[in-house]
Amino acid sequence: MAKAKNILFIMFDQLRWDYLSCYGHPYLDTPNIDCLASLGVRFDRAYIQSPICGSSRMSTYTGRYVHSHGASWNGIPLKVGEMTMGDHLRSAGMGAWLVGKTHMRADAEGMARLGLEPDSLIGARVAECGFDVYERDDGMLPEGPDGPYDPDGAKAYNAYLQDKGYDSDNPWHDFANSGLDDEGNVLSGWFLRNAPRAANVEEADSETPYLTRRGMAFIEQADGPWCCHLSYIKPHWPYIVPEPYCDMYGPNQVLPPVRSQAEFDTAHPVLKAFMTTKIGETFSQQHVREAVIPAYMGLIKQCDDQMGVLFDWLEDTSRMDETMIVLTSDHGDFLGDHWMGEKTFFHDTSTRVPLIVYDPSPEADATRGTVCDALVESIDLAPTFVEVAGGATAGHILEGESLLPILHGARAETLREYVICEYDYSGSPLAARLNLNVRDAVMFMIANKRWKLIHCEGGYRPILFDLQNDPDELTDLGDSPDHAEVLAQMYDKLFEWARRPSQRTTRSEAQLLEMRGDAGRRGVVIGIYDENDTPLELTTKYRSRKAPHWRDRHGNPVRVEDEN
Amino acid sequence: MAKAKNILFIMFDQLRWDYLSCYGHPYLDTPNIDCLASLGVRFDRAYIQSPICGSSRMSTYTGRYVHSHGASWNGIPLKVGEMTMGDHLRSAGMGAWLVGKTHMRADAEGMARLGLEPDSLIGARVAECGFDVYERDDGMLPEGPDGPYDPDGAKAYNAYLQDKGYDSDNPWHDFANSGLDDEGNVLSGWFLRNAPRAANVEEADSETPYLTRRGMAFIEQADGPWCCHLSYIKPHWPYIVPEPYCDMYGPNQVLPPVRSQAEFDTAHPVLKAFMTTKIGETFSQQHVREAVIPAYMGLIKQCDDQMGVLFDWLEDTSRMDETMIVLTSDHGDFLGDHWMGEKTFFHDTSTRVPLIVYDPSPEADATRGTVCDALVESIDLAPTFVEVAGGATAGHILEGESLLPILHGARAETLREYVICEYDYSGSPLAARLNLNVRDAVMFMIANKRWKLIHCEGGYRPILFDLQNDPDELTDLGDSPDHAEVLAQMYDKLFEWARRPSQRTTRSEAQLLEMRGDAGRRGVVIGIYDENDTPLELTTKYRSRKAPHWRDRHGNPVRVEDEN
Repeated sequence: MAKAKNILFIMFDQLRWDYLSCYGHPYLDTPNIDCLASLGVRFDRAYIQSPICGSSRMSTYTGRYVHSHGASWNGIPLKVGEMTMGDHLRSAGMGAWLVGKTHMRADAEGMARLGLEPDSLIGARVAECGFDVYERDDGMLPEGPDGPYDPDGAKAYNAYLQDKGYDSDNPWHDFANSGLDDEGNVLSGWFLRNAPRAANVEEADSETPYLTRRGMAFIEQADGPWCCHLSYIKPHWPYIVPEPYCDMYGPNQVLPPVRSQAEFDTAHPVLKAFMTTKIGETFSQQHVREAVIPAYMGLIKQCDDQMGVLFDWLEDTSRMDETMIVLTSDHGDFLGDHWMGEKTFFHDTSTRVPLIVYDPSPEADATRGTVCDALVESIDLAPTFVEVAGGATAGHILEGESLLPILHGARAETLREYVICEYDYSGSPLAARLNLNVRDAVMFMIANKRWKLIHCEGGYRPILFDLQNDPDELTDLGDSPDHAEVLAQMYDKLFEWARRPSQRTTRSEAQLLEMRGDAGRRGVVIGIYDENDTPLELTTKYRSRKAPHWRDRHGNPVRVEDEN
Repeated sequence: MAKAKNILFIMFDQLRWDYLSCYGHPYLDTPNIDCLASLGVRFDRAYIQSPICGSSRMSTYTGRYVHSHGASWNGIPLKVGEMTMGDHLRSAGMGAWLVGKTHMRADAEGMARLGLEPDSLIGARVAECGFDVYERDDGMLPEGPDGPYDPDGAKAYNAYLQDKGYDSDNPWHDFANSGLDDEGNVLSGWFLRNAPRAANVEEADSETPYLTRRGMAFIEQADGPWCCHLSYIKPHWPYIVPEPYCDMYGPNQVLPPVRSQAEFDTAHPVLKAFMTTKIGETFSQQHVREAVIPAYMGLIKQCDDQMGVLFDWLEDTSRMDETMIVLTSDHGDFLGDHWMGEKTFFHDTSTRVPLIVYDPSPEADATRGTVCDALVESIDLAPTFVEVAGGATAGHILEGESLLPILHGARAETLREYVICEYDYSGSPLAARLNLNVRDAVMFMIANKRWKLIHCEGGYRPILFDLQNDPDELTDLGDSPDHAEVLAQMYDKLFEWARRPSQRTTRSEAQLLEMRGDAGRRGVVIGIYDENDTPLELTTKYRSRKAPHWRDRHGNPVRVEDEN
């Protein structure tokens, strides 16, 4: 089967599934991304594994659920030993390179325990969740009274800006992510009222075009089969965008929030806690939405334009025929829907992402321009890529499934019955507000096409949405007696999932099947009374053997050494 | 609190909990082990985490459930990155040394991936499940048509025997584990009809006394605080013992099998499959039991005599006052009970083990000679040892709990509501017989003091035993309509356990609590509309900053470099 030679794996950050024209946004026109969709398959029901950057990405990069890899919140390191997409791809002869963001936190303690130097080839890959780093840009460098969020962060793009003459110790903040008033005061993009301002940066120097160029620079010099993870920072906050994008959209293009008063009034206690954080309260205000959403849309429009630049360049350099292009996001953004901001809950607004896969191989011709509503998870990308690279899929490690059968028209659905998403907020201030210990500040979502169940640890009742009759997820049926059976069924499936043997990663299915009977063929003889009760060939090593007695006929010890 | 300086962690292999006089065996007198019990606490309800050597031990050595560490069957390597008792103890300043058996299979692939050389200090520890190896003896070397079970195995004791003049390429088999007929033919201990024979080895040269001496040799030269895992091979099969132990017990001391015809006739299909293996059928025959059990008892008697040698020596060398002594087993042995041989099912016969802990510290005086029926698991040993070593218990990694509060009389019970045991037979011939794929050939046991639930994957009904009214576990209530509520409750607990965040091992509970609010104090500002809506100190880095505009008043780009 002819396959793409290389993989361009594009990820946006915090891009809602429904903020692209091909996914139905009425005002936001994204012709370049739409064009990719017309060349490939647009997945309409793709779910991420955790509604927060770091954990979602660690699932994508390992091909494993959060419950399996354990990096369950931003800042919780991915533990040494977890295999990544990069490990699997390199085994299959394909390089795995990073240009942009991962949100990886290295397991420094685990690395030290195993003697892995961060500056060694292996150590660097372990520290960078399996990628070789062409360039890492994780986003602007936050700094507060306790110091910087990531002391090693934001180096490359900050240096670029400084080199370009943006004069500051943190130009990413002061220029790329901030506006400016007439007196030369920096109006930080952190503060949402500044969102409508123009970012004080030349458009070409802003994050998205910069990363596009870095991606092209990588590709231009890349050798051999490669997977390039071109991982954009935007449209993630700070919500601020340079001209001309800052002026493209206004309050008229801001869709009304998807929410209801009843939803708020009767909200499950954990959901209510999220709604009533400072973030939820802020994004529930219309003037905030009208400030933020046009900037968010401008950022996406800029992303789409950059996709135009990138795809044209790939076409012009004859790379479209040999490059699989995957475009997705790490999670969505509530933007005031359901009385919340940010992404840390389980409505489709946050957990469903755009996913478009263009496969240049002739086998994919049958599906070009189609839409697929199979239940897809972001952990499916790793096995898909491994199959493209020609490797054997390590099904005992990777928990997703290759999408190639769908891309090639062999199947319309994935094999799974449900998708899983998880959120661990044990390290967040909300857990303190809810008086939850670290064991109980954990939630699970399980969904099929009809139902979505949310289980919150800590003794709470479940949350249930009917995705068919209530696609906006406004009515929580978690305490509906009429839905007891559905709840029980969904819980059964979650239980089944929780019991999966996710850590049996050192022996493949094929090896386990081979092991059946293996011990017997390696001389382990159990439960055999008489040597003639078992096939001769299994016991030849124990038959017809001669030995001297260790005592002589007088009862004195006799050993061979004594006989000589 | 005064604590033991060193830990002598003695494990026997396949020693049933009820085959010691202190645990109630009517014919088998084990005064030396009983004496240890009189000096410490005898735990009467100690469960292992898997009824098979390798997996049970990996749980003991990691302090984690099989579902967490993944080494779920003999020969499935413990994956690189899993922390062990040895890692925790060394962090606390105590060495962790092996003398004897572990059944560890190294994750050679994972080690190669991380560049860990097996002969480096770190690599050797990873390959030996965290121990520094004084001597490893995993048992006799089996060999069959597909080669040896473990090509690197059985070196030290075989060399000892050869050195002593036992002339053979595999003296462990030909002498220590076999008898001899008058013509000098080796009668292999693998074949159960040879069990009543005397092993053709001088008693002092047989495995158990040999390992006792090796343990004493280690202790004699040991430096600094140490934990010595003195891990005996016996009374594990091959069931054969030298004189005088081979003649100590006969058919009259063989207890009748604990079983019933109804139990066999109505057995759950998975249990029935275990009963009807060759092993089950063999051990169900009384003449086999009468051949094997006296030898098994002789092996245990020899173990007890060696405990006498060891404890006397510790006393004579003034080590009893500074050494915690822990004596346990990795699982039991059905010996024909419940129509089974071996250990791979969940009756107490197999999953309950003797556990005696002698703590020399004065705090333990209050509990000397007492019996504790708390729900204890073998994963409790690692946190107990870490506490003795003075380390901080890593509760985010270790899943058990320290037994010191019980040993010191501060508590009578552990904190857990239930114990868990698991068995993965996906790599066993039985899975093929039951036509089970590798996902479904997995079982879980959950038990409290009253009930034991066994869940078999693959769509089977559960098995349930009432441990109070049916302590012999002869009546399976798994399909009893009267027990629907109990079944549901036990399943709820199993579900709760399966959802535990067992892989979040890179951040401790204390660190997670510290993280609450941390991002805000490191400059992450989310959901703030106006800069005055948030405490000044959190945002000083984003205020009162000045920057030039990137365009001049004519609209031309101005950068600092252009101004100069």
